[in-house]
Amino acid sequence: MTKLYLGIDLGGTEVKIAVVTAEGVIREEARVPNSVVSVPEEICREIISRAKAMKDFKKLAGTGIGVAGDIDQAHGIVRFSPNLPAWKNANLRKILGRALPKPIIVDNDANAAALGAYWLDAKGKVNNLVCITLGTGVGGGLVIDGKLYRGATGSAGEVGHIPFEPNGPICKCGSRGCIERYLGAPSLSLQAREEVKMGKSALIMRLVNGRLNDITPAVLATAAQKGDQLAKKLWEDAGERLGIVLAGLINLLNPEMIVLAGGVSRAGDLLLKPIKETIKERAFVTPANACKVVISKYNQQLGVVGAALLAKK
Amino acid sequence: MTKLYLGIDLGGTEVKIAVVTAEGVIREEARVPNSVVSVPEEICREIISRAKAMKDFKKLAGTGIGVAGDIDQAHGIVRFSPNLPAWKNANLRKILGRALPKPIIVDNDANAAALGAYWLDAKGKVNNLVCITLGTGVGGGLVIDGKLYRGATGSAGEVGHIPFEPNGPICKCGSRGCIERYLGAPSLSLQAREEVKMGKSALIMRLVNGRLNDITPAVLATAAQKGDQLAKKLWEDAGERLGIVLAGLINLLNPEMIVLAGGVSRAGDLLLKPIKETIKERAFVTPANACKVVISKYNQQLGVVGAALLAKK
Repeated sequence: MTKLYLGIDLGGTEVKIAVVTAEGVIREEARVPNSVVSVPEEICREIISRAKAMKDFKKLAGTGIGVAGDIDQAHGIVRFSPNLPAWKNANLRKILGRALPKPIIVDNDANAAALGAYWLDAKGKVNNLVCITLGTGVGGGLVIDGKLYRGATGSAGEVGHIPFEPNGPICKCGSRGCIERYLGAPSLSLQAREEVKMGKSALIMRLVNGRLNDITPAVLATAAQKGDQLAKKLWEDAGERLGIVLAGLINLLNPEMIVLAGGVSRAGDLLLKPIKETIKERAFVTPANACKVVISKYNQQLGVVGAALLAKK
Repeated sequence: MTKLYLGIDLGGTEVKIAVVTAEGVIREEARVPNSVVSVPEEICREIISRAKAMKDFKKLAGTGIGVAGDIDQAHGIVRFSPNLPAWKNANLRKILGRALPKPIIVDNDANAAALGAYWLDAKGKVNNLVCITLGTGVGGGLVIDGKLYRGATGSAGEVGHIPFEPNGPICKCGSRGCIERYLGAPSLSLQAREEVKMGKSALIMRLVNGRLNDITPAVLATAAQKGDQLAKKLWEDAGERLGIVLAGLINLLNPEMIVLAGGVSRAGDLLLKPIKETIKERAFVTPANACKVVISKYNQQLGVVGAALLAKK
């Protein structure tokens, strides 16, 4: 019989809790609302009570938790989470370890998503995979030889902070021209906003009822699907830029699969088509042909499934 | 007692052959001249005869060969080597396997150098290491969890073809702005030549007796050490550019060590200083602090030692 793990995807607005099989299948799921003002002890109490109510609770072989931010994976501590400012130095291993099945493994959400993509999108059948989460930030996780690759200090996989343009705009990380500065949801929205403000798209203006601050990647995807030239161009540029970075990544890591996940990836072919064209133009032929680039079919589940499988040995 | 392996570093002008311990110590060494017009059977005969003359030949536990170019590592075949055009599809495993100790492992020279750097510069004491060979081309090899990481089709590690500027000059790989187009020896020399031609450095002009084609990275290093402003600026630019790429690589792979090798790395601090400064400015703090960036102290031995250790299980 397959082993079961508890997965906790600790987001800024919602916590997903699930019992997951060793192959990444969700058996039972629950959700707890969260907010930026939440304090760890309170939410953790709620998480514990929901987890204990699950019918396979007694059979669980471990607990994995994915959180956005800087995680001390070795000690199970959230050093800092941008979505949860009150969780500074929260020792989740200690807080949850009293009540939930051990081992308690805490890692960042992009690593959890990579493990989720490995089991769901790749069915555990590739050796090497890169997962890129395209949301407010651009995150990433690397699976090498079937295992999460964390590097020397647990921070490997920061695809978003690979430089795209050496003298590009300043990034919040302190560097310049990181790909996150072009592909992150706020950057995409900002690029559109400036053009729309100059009257470049009546359609987008209409879609947001004149409220430029309501422009989001989702709006831009709708506009592009309706044929809006500006939106189409923005997605083409975005795909080309990410494609250039991915071509370098393919030359460097020669992965079997690149999985794109997160809200911005819902643009689908608008993003994927120029990515694939650019990779074809830019990367070495053999590794480019060997690398499947896909958009995750399991966007909603990657985080919680991957979190659960963090606990799998 | 330590196991012994035969290493063969198959260069365009010279073949190095050595008996190497499992820890990377050379016990005995020989050299055979090579040339671009050489044919595999002939040189291999010479290699075999030199190897058999080594006093520990009977004790060897395997043979590893490093060759520049596109290598079919799984079958031990040199698909194509830019330095040895006649070696197209040379089946080294077959040719050498009749006479030399098995297993016979063939891989590209940058991978062999990475393994050499892992055992010599890192003493086998890090988990993850990136080795970058700075020569005519910019090559690379990745050691992950103490083993060479080859990726899906054996071509991982192509650090030279990470894009530096998305719209930079066309690279021989077909892409644009690859870091090799800035850091490869011919590119460095060309940048200098154009400036010297315009009268920007009387010293360099003197060092090459007015023969602009004689400008090499070695000449530029000498000029910079003598205080030449143009040469100093060229090394600073080179270091900054490589530093930007390495900052991305540190964010992505979080390696414990980056080892620079190859002819261009002999510029030493001229190159290393701006690299380190740039990494400090650009990479995430924790992984940057955790990563030692060094110039190999074993430049002459990396290739043959790493080649030998390809055969180690």
